[in-house]
Amino acid sequence: MGSTRKEHDFLGELDIPNHLYYGIQTFRAVENFNITGIPISKEPLFIKALGYVKKAAALANKDCGRLDPKIAEAICYGSDQVIAGKFDQEFVSDLIQGGAGTSVNMNANEVIANIGLEYLGHKKGDYNFLHPNNHVNCSQSTNDAYPSAFRIALYLKMESFIKTLEGLEVAFVANGEEFKSVLKMGRTQLQDAVPMTLGQEFRSYATTIGEDVRRLKEAQSLVLEINMGATAIGTRVNAPEGYPEICVNYLAKEVGIPLTLSPDLIEATVDTGAYVQIMGTLKRTAVKISKICNDLRLLSSGPRTGFNEINLPARQPGSSIMPGKVNPVIPEVVNQTCFYVIGQDLTVTMAAEAGQLQLNVMEPVIAFAMFTSLDYLSNAIQTLIDKCIIGITANVDHCYNMVMNSIGIVTQLNPILGYEISASIAGEALKMNKSVHEIVVVERKLITQEKWDEIYSLDNLINPKFITK
Amino acid sequence: MGSTRKEHDFLGELDIPNHLYYGIQTFRAVENFNITGIPISKEPLFIKALGYVKKAAALANKDCGRLDPKIAEAICYGSDQVIAGKFDQEFVSDLIQGGAGTSVNMNANEVIANIGLEYLGHKKGDYNFLHPNNHVNCSQSTNDAYPSAFRIALYLKMESFIKTLEGLEVAFVANGEEFKSVLKMGRTQLQDAVPMTLGQEFRSYATTIGEDVRRLKEAQSLVLEINMGATAIGTRVNAPEGYPEICVNYLAKEVGIPLTLSPDLIEATVDTGAYVQIMGTLKRTAVKISKICNDLRLLSSGPRTGFNEINLPARQPGSSIMPGKVNPVIPEVVNQTCFYVIGQDLTVTMAAEAGQLQLNVMEPVIAFAMFTSLDYLSNAIQTLIDKCIIGITANVDHCYNMVMNSIGIVTQLNPILGYEISASIAGEALKMNKSVHEIVVVERKLITQEKWDEIYSLDNLINPKFITK
Amino acid sequence: MGSTRKEHDFLGELDIPNHLYYGIQTFRAVENFNITGIPISKEPLFIKALGYVKKAAALANKDCGRLDPKIAEAICYGSDQVIAGKFDQEFVSDLIQGGAGTSVNMNANEVIANIGLEYLGHKKGDYNFLHPNNHVNCSQSTNDAYPSAFRIALYLKMESFIKTLEGLEVAFVANGEEFKSVLKMGRTQLQDAVPMTLGQEFRSYATTIGEDVRRLKEAQSLVLEINMGATAIGTRVNAPEGYPEICVNYLAKEVGIPLTLSPDLIEATVDTGAYVQIMGTLKRTAVKISKICNDLRLLSSGPRTGFNEINLPARQPGSSIMPGKVNPVIPEVVNQTCFYVIGQDLTVTMAAEAGQLQLNVMEPVIAFAMFTSLDYLSNAIQTLIDKCIIGITANVDHCYNMVMNSIGIVTQLNPILGYEISASIAGEALKMNKSVHEIVVVERKLITQEKWDEIYSLDNLINPKFITK
Amino acid sequence: MGSTRKEHDFLGELDIPNHLYYGIQTFRAVENFNITGIPISKEPLFIKALGYVKKAAALANKDCGRLDPKIAEAICYGSDQVIAGKFDQEFVSDLIQGGAGTSVNMNANEVIANIGLEYLGHKKGDYNFLHPNNHVNCSQSTNDAYPSAFRIALYLKMESFIKTLEGLEVAFVANGEEFKSVLKMGRTQLQDAVPMTLGQEFRSYATTIGEDVRRLKEAQSLVLEINMGATAIGTRVNAPEGYPEICVNYLAKEVGIPLTLSPDLIEATVDTGAYVQIMGTLKRTAVKISKICNDLRLLSSGPRTGFNEINLPARQPGSSIMPGKVNPVIPEVVNQTCFYVIGQDLTVTMAAEAGQLQLNVMEPVIAFAMFTSLDYLSNAIQTLIDKCIIGITANVDHCYNMVMNSIGIVTQLNPILGYEISASIAGEALKMNKSVHEIVVVERKLITQEKWDEIYSLDNLINPKFITK
Repeated sequence: MGSTRKEHDFLGELDIPNHLYYGIQTFRAVENFNITGIPISKEPLFIKALGYVKKAAALANKDCGRLDPKIAEAICYGSDQVIAGKFDQEFVSDLIQGGAGTSVNMNANEVIANIGLEYLGHKKGDYNFLHPNNHVNCSQSTNDAYPSAFRIALYLKMESFIKTLEGLEVAFVANGEEFKSVLKMGRTQLQDAVPMTLGQEFRSYATTIGEDVRRLKEAQSLVLEINMGATAIGTRVNAPEGYPEICVNYLAKEVGIPLTLSPDLIEATVDTGAYVQIMGTLKRTAVKISKICNDLRLLSSGPRTGFNEINLPARQPGSSIMPGKVNPVIPEVVNQTCFYVIGQDLTVTMAAEAGQLQLNVMEPVIAFAMFTSLDYLSNAIQTLIDKCIIGITANVDHCYNMVMNSIGIVTQLNPILGYEISASIAGEALKMNKSVHEIVVVERKLITQEKWDEIYSLDNLINPKFITK
Repeated sequence: MGSTRKEHDFLGELDIPNHLYYGIQTFRAVENFNITGIPISKEPLFIKALGYVKKAAALANKDCGRLDPKIAEAICYGSDQVIAGKFDQEFVSDLIQGGAGTSVNMNANEVIANIGLEYLGHKKGDYNFLHPNNHVNCSQSTNDAYPSAFRIALYLKMESFIKTLEGLEVAFVANGEEFKSVLKMGRTQLQDAVPMTLGQEFRSYATTIGEDVRRLKEAQSLVLEINMGATAIGTRVNAPEGYPEICVNYLAKEVGIPLTLSPDLIEATVDTGAYVQIMGTLKRTAVKISKICNDLRLLSSGPRTGFNEINLPARQPGSSIMPGKVNPVIPEVVNQTCFYVIGQDLTVTMAAEAGQLQLNVMEPVIAFAMFTSLDYLSNAIQTLIDKCIIGITANVDHCYNMVMNSIGIVTQLNPILGYEISASIAGEALKMNKSVHEIVVVERKLITQEKWDEIYSLDNLINPKFITK
Repeated sequence: MGSTRKEHDFLGELDIPNHLYYGIQTFRAVENFNITGIPISKEPLFIKALGYVKKAAALANKDCGRLDPKIAEAICYGSDQVIAGKFDQEFVSDLIQGGAGTSVNMNANEVIANIGLEYLGHKKGDYNFLHPNNHVNCSQSTNDAYPSAFRIALYLKMESFIKTLEGLEVAFVANGEEFKSVLKMGRTQLQDAVPMTLGQEFRSYATTIGEDVRRLKEAQSLVLEINMGATAIGTRVNAPEGYPEICVNYLAKEVGIPLTLSPDLIEATVDTGAYVQIMGTLKRTAVKISKICNDLRLLSSGPRTGFNEINLPARQPGSSIMPGKVNPVIPEVVNQTCFYVIGQDLTVTMAAEAGQLQLNVMEPVIAFAMFTSLDYLSNAIQTLIDKCIIGITANVDHCYNMVMNSIGIVTQLNPILGYEISASIAGEALKMNKSVHEIVVVERKLITQEKWDEIYSLDNLINPKFITK
Repeated sequence: MGSTRKEHDFLGELDIPNHLYYGIQTFRAVENFNITGIPISKEPLFIKALGYVKKAAALANKDCGRLDPKIAEAICYGSDQVIAGKFDQEFVSDLIQGGAGTSVNMNANEVIANIGLEYLGHKKGDYNFLHPNNHVNCSQSTNDAYPSAFRIALYLKMESFIKTLEGLEVAFVANGEEFKSVLKMGRTQLQDAVPMTLGQEFRSYATTIGEDVRRLKEAQSLVLEINMGATAIGTRVNAPEGYPEICVNYLAKEVGIPLTLSPDLIEATVDTGAYVQIMGTLKRTAVKISKICNDLRLLSSGPRTGFNEINLPARQPGSSIMPGKVNPVIPEVVNQTCFYVIGQDLTVTMAAEAGQLQLNVMEPVIAFAMFTSLDYLSNAIQTLIDKCIIGITANVDHCYNMVMNSIGIVTQLNPILGYEISASIAGEALKMNKSVHEIVVVERKLITQEKWDEIYSLDNLINPKFITK
C-alpha cells in the first residue's frame, strides 16, 4: 500500500499504489473485467511474447528515427526484464476482456514504461520522459501488437504441445512392438470380425497420432504470419516507411522463429482464420484421443464380464463401496478433457464468426480457449502416457482363446468354401453353440486337420497368406 | 406452359405462366434462393398453418371493418383450399431463404389471392379485385404471419413426434416387464459392478424417455404464444384496434389449440427463445437415445468375444466379406440421426444468436433445422421400435453365469465382512483366477454355504435385502 | 512437512503428512489428475453440499441401526465443520477427474473421518475407530453421494445466478421506463423499418430476460430429485431398508430445499438429463444476452459514422493509437463470456452422450463446465448491469431526426394510400434523395399538412392509432 | 410391377421385382433405413466412384488370378454403365444408414452383378454365374470399398466446390479494383477508427477467401490416401498378394487423380481424421463467409438510418407491409447456409468420436453431412456471387463526407500533436459537436490550412505517408 502516484487518462485521474509497475489503464481493466479470475500472468509465454513485440518495435522505431536511442534503450531494457519473466505478477488483466486486447497491450506498455523510467533514473509515472503510448506503443496499435504477441505465444505453446503429442506416438509405437505377437479378435461394429494382433491395434494408434503431429505443425505455421506495422486497421497509418518489415525482422530474430509480414495487412488485422484452423486441428486431435481412450476402456472392460483383453495399470481404488474394483480412471479423465477441447473449438468458432468490419474484437476469448485447451490437453496426454499407456499389459491366453472360440474365423475359409457355405457354417455354429473347427473339420470334414492347422497357425493368422484349396 | 400473365412489383414486371397460382414475388424467390433444393411443399403442416393464419386474419379484418365481407369470404375459401392440402405443389420457395420468410408469406398471399380471384369469378393476376398485400396480407407483416405459422406447424409436428416418443417408452416398459427376472451383471465405468436385472435396465430406459416426453410437452407449450397483430416490429402499426386479440382467437379456434397473444409484441417479434428451448430439449432427447443405442450395441456385442447379453433382431447380412456376421444396424442408424439432431441444435443456436434489433432474419434456417430434425428423429425412433426394440431377446443363462463368475458379487459381503477383507478376497480372486464362492465358502470358510445361498439366491440378488451376519 | 502417518488401501501403503486431514485416496487423486489445476476448493458450495450429504447419511444410518450413535455424532461434527467452510483447503482434487467422482467422495470421506477421529480423541489415520469407507461412506456409493452433492451445489449456485439475472431484468425495466418517450427508428434486417420508442426496445430486453428467469427456475427444480440410497447402480445394494427415504428427508431439512427421492433409482444413477436441460437453458440465456450485447454495440456505433442512438458509459480509453476513441468494452466482454458458455454446453452434451450402461463416468467435466459457466456468466451479467446498463444515455434529438428523415415512415400512409402508391413514394424518395414529407405533402399533395401532423405527431408515432383517410 | 425373381441371403428369401437391378440386400436396406428420404442417387459422384472402385477391383483381381477374365470383363462393363450414370435410379439406399455402408456397397455389388449377368447373356439374379459377393466384391470388404468410393466422391466434389470458391475470390478482387479510390471510414469495435478505401476492404475479402482455397486444397489431398485391399479390418485377409497396390493403381488411372495406398491399413480402416480435417476447414470457410455477409449487411444498412456505404442489388420487395423496403436477402441466405455447415461440422465431430475399435460405423452420416454441406454452401456461394457481389455499388460521396465529418481522423495528427492533445481535440469535437478541422485549424490554429490539406488529401488518406511537423 503505502504511497501512491497520480495517473490520468482522458477519462480522468486515479491514485495508483506506487509499488505497482502497471498504471491507470491496467487499473481500469482490473475494475472493468472480472470474469474468470484468471489473469494473463497465468500465461508466461504470452507475457514473454509481449516483451519481444515491444522490444522489436522499439528497435525498429529507433532505426526509423522515431525514437531517441536512449528511450529505445530503456524500452529494450524494460522488455528484456519482462521477457525474463521478472514482472509476470504485474500482468493482472483477466484473460477474457473487452476492448480487443487493449488492456493487455496497455498493461505491457505501462509496465515497460515504468521499468524503463526507473532505468533512466526517473520515477514511475513520470511519463513525459517515457510514455506508454507515445514511446512504448510507438508505431503500434493494440490491433497489431496484441495479435502478434498472441501468435508468438501460440506458436511457442504449440511447440511444447506437439512434443507431448509425439511422446504419445512413441509410447504407442512401443506398445505396438511389445504386443506384436499377441493374437486377438478384431471387431467391427462391436461384433466379432477377424483376427489381428494387439500390436497392430496399438501401432495404428501411433500412426493416427503421428498424422496429427504433422497436421498440427502445418497449422502452427499459419501463425508465423504477423501484422506488425498494420497499426489501427492495416493501413499503416502513423507507422513510418519501412517500419513494418524492419520490426518483423527484429522480432523474428529475437524470438528465434521465422516470422513474416502479412502481405495484406487489412485482412491480417481482422482475420482469425489461423486460430480457427489450429483449434479445428486440435479438436481433431481431441476426437482421435477420445476415440482411443474409448477403445482402451472397452478393451480393458471386465475383469470377468467384459472384453478383458488388456489391463490398465491400477491407479486408485475404484469404488467407495465395491471392494477390489479398479476403474480406467486415466482414460476417463482424458476423455473429459477432450470434451472440454471440443467445446472450446465451438467457442473459437463463434468468436471468429463475430468479427466485424476491420477487427475481431473477440480475440481475447479465442486466446483463453486456445491457451486452456492446449494446457489441459497437454496435461491429459502426459498423464495418459505416464500413468496408463506405458503400464498396459495383455491377457495373452484369453485373447488367443477368444479368437479360436470365435465364429469370425470362418472368414478365412471364404476363398476355399465360398461365401454361402461359410455363412451356413457360421449360422450353425451360432445356433448350436459349436466351434467352427468342430463343424468344418470334425463333422462336415470340409477341410483336413492339416489344412486347418496351416490356416489357423498363429503365424498365418498374424500375417495372413492367401490360402486356397 | 402455354399462356402467361404479366405481374409486377416495385422492381419491375415479369411473365408468369398462367397455370401457376403463385405470382411474381414467389417467382423471384425461386430465382434468388436455390440452396437446399427442398421446397416448403415438403412441410405440409407449415402450408396448412399458413392457411390457418391467412383465414384467421381475414376473419379478424372483416370484424374490424378492414375487409369487405365478400373479399374476406374469398380469402377464407382460398385458405381452406390451402389448409386442405390441395395447393401444396404451389409452395415452391426453398426452405432456407433470405428475407426472414417474406417469400414464404408472399407465396401464401399470392396463392390464396389467385384461388380467391377465381372463386370470385376473376382471372388469376387481377389483383385489383383481391390483392396479395392489400387484402390477403391485410393488417399483417411477414414478421407476425411467418413466425405464427411456423409456431403452429411446429406445435402440430411436435404432437406427432411426442406420440412416437411415447411409443418408445411403451416398448421399453414391455421389455422391462419381459426381462424382469433375468439376472445380469451391472457395470459402471465398463467394469463389473453388482448384479441387477435386465428388466431394471430396460425399465430405466422407459423412465428416462418418459421424462423427455414431459420436458418436450413443456417446451412445446412455449410456441402457443404468438404475435399476430404485431405487424412489422411489434408496434401494431397499421393493425386496427382490437385486431390482434380477435385474430388470435379465430386462429386458436380454427387450429384447435390454445394459442395466446404475446404480452410484449416487440419482444415476441424478435425473440427466438422458444425455438432454442425446444431444440435444446430435442437435443437432450437425442443425447439420451444415442446413449441407449450405445448400450444396446454394447450389450449385444459378440457373439463370442463381447458381452453377448442380448440379441437384437437380425435385419440384414452384416458384411460383404465376413459370412454370418450380423450387425446392430438399427441402433447404428439411430445414433447417426442423433448426431444430425445435435448438429442442428448448434445451427439453431447460431441462428438465434444472430438476431439483430427488431427481428431475427435467420428464422428460415431455424425452421429447416427443426423440421428436418423432428422428421429424421421421428423416423429413426419408429425404426428403432419396430425393427429392434420389440424383437430383442435375452441370453438368460449366459447373463446368470457371468454374474456368478464375477468378482463384483463380493460387494454383497461388505456388510458382513467389511470393506477391507472383501477387497482382499476380490484381489485374490482376480490374481488367482478363482471364484468368490471358492475363496469365501470353501477355502476361507468365512460364511457357510447356507448363508451363501441366502445371499446369492436369485430373489435376493434381484431384490436385495440387507443381510448381516 | 514434519511428521507423517502411514495409510494404506488395496493398492499399497503411502506416507501422508500428518497435518493433512485428507488421506491416501485423495493423495492418489492428486497424483493421478493434474489437468486444470483448479481444485474443488474453488467451489465452496460443492464442499458444503458434500458435508450435508455425509451428515444426512450418518443420521439416517444411525436411525437404521447401521452406525453407533457415537460414531454418527463424530461424523456429524466433521460434516458440520466442512459445511462451515473450515476445511475448504483440504479439498484438493482437480475438478476434472476420472473415476466418476470417487476422488471427490473419498476426499470428503477422509477429511470428515479425520476431523471425527480427533473429535473422538483419536489420531488422524486411526481408521479402525472411524473409517472413511465403512463409516463415513456407510450405505453410500460415490454413485449416489457425488451426484447428490453436485445437484445440491448446482441448485444453490443457480439460486444466486438467477438473482443476478433478475437484476438485469430490473435494470432493463428501468431503462425502458426512462426512454419511454424517445422516438427512434425500428430496424428489421438492418434496414430502416418503422418508428418505435427506445423504451419499447429496452422493455423488450427485460421481457426476454424475464422469460429466462422462469425457464431457469423450471430447469433448476429438476436437480431437486436425488438418488441417495441407490448405492452402486440403483439397486440399493448394501443400503438398509428405509434408509433412502430417511436420508433424503434429513438432507432436505439440513439444506433447506425440497429434495425428493428419485422414483427410479437405476435410471437416476446414470441419467444426466437434468444437467443437459439446465445447461441448454443456460445456453439459451447466453444466446439472448449475446444478442442484446450485439444490439447495444450496434445502437452505440459511431459516434459519427454509425447509428449513434445511445451512449454507453465510457469505461476506459479505447485505443492505444486512436486518441479519444471509446469502445463498448463491457458488452464485448459479455459477448465473449456467452461464447464460452455456449461452448461448454457442447462439452456437457458430449459428456452426457458418453454415459454407458449403469453410470455416466463423465460427470466431473459436466460439473466443471456448469460451475465455470455459472460463475463466468454471473460475473459478466453483474458487470453488464453495473458498468454499462445503468449508465446508458440516449441521443434523443438524433434519434428523432433519423425517424423524420427516414423513408420507412411511409408505412404509416399504407392504409390511406395503398401499398403500391406508398412503394412509389418510397422509391422516389430514395432515388431523388427527398423526404417523404416533401413528396407527399408538398409535391404530390396526397394528404394535407394537417393530416400529416396528426399521423406523425410524437404521440401517434409512439402509440399508433389506426388512421385512415 | 409384373414378374419377380427369388433372391436369398442367409436371413431368408424375398421376391424382387424383375425389372430392378438391385437385389435382396438393397431391398432390405430400403426396408430398414427410412430416415431422411434422401437416397444415394442424389449423389451421382458417389455412384460414379463406386463404379470406379468395382472396376479397379475387378481388374486387379483378374491380374492376381482371382477372377476369370470373362467375369472381370462383365464386371467392368457393369461398372462402366454405372460410371456413366445410366443406373443412378437403382441406387436407392437412404444416405443415412446403419451397417457402416454395407448397404451402399451391396447396392453397387448387386446392380453391377445384374448388369454383368445380362451382358453375359444370363438373367438377373442368376448369381451362380456372377455373384455380388464372390465376384463383384471379390477381395473387398465394405470397409475398404465404401470409404474408398466416398473419398473419391469427396475429392471430386471438392474440386468443383473449390472452383466456386475461387469464383468468389475473383469477384472480390474485381470489387477491390473498382472501389480502390473510394475513401471511407474504417471501423473497429463498431466505432469510427481511421480512413481506408472501400477497395481495400473488398480486397481483404479476396485475400481471406484465397487463403481458404489453399487450405481446402491441402485438406482435399488427405482423401487421396485410400485403403483398398484392407478388406475387413486392414489385415488384408482374403486379399491376394499384391492386390492392394495393383488395385489402387488401376483406380488412380481410371479416376484420373493421384490416389495412393495407405501405409497403415489397420489405421486407415477406422480413421476418419481426413473427414474431420476437411469438414473443419469447410467450417472455417463458412465462418469467414458468414463474417463477410455480416459486413455486407452492415455496410448496406440504411438507407437513411444506417451506414449506407454500399448498395446491394435489389433482388425482391423486402416486406409485405413496408412499401419500398429492400432487404439484403442474398447475404442473409448465405449466413444461414453457413450456420447449417457449422452445425454439420459438429455432426461430423460426434460421428468421428464415436468410432470404435477397428471401424467407424458412423461414416454414412459423415458422408451425408459433407455432401449436403458442400452442396448447400456451393449453391450459396454461387448465389452470393451472381446475385449480390457483382452488382454492388458504392455511395462515394456519402462515404467521403462521413470520413471528413469524423473524429477518428484526429489520429492522423498524433505524430504531430501527440496522443494527449489529440485526445483532447477528440473529446471537444464530440462534446461540442464540432469537426476536427474546426478545432484544429480555425479555433486552436494548431496546424495551417496548407498542412491540413496535405494530410487530408484523398491521396494521403488512401496511401498515408508519415507526415510530421
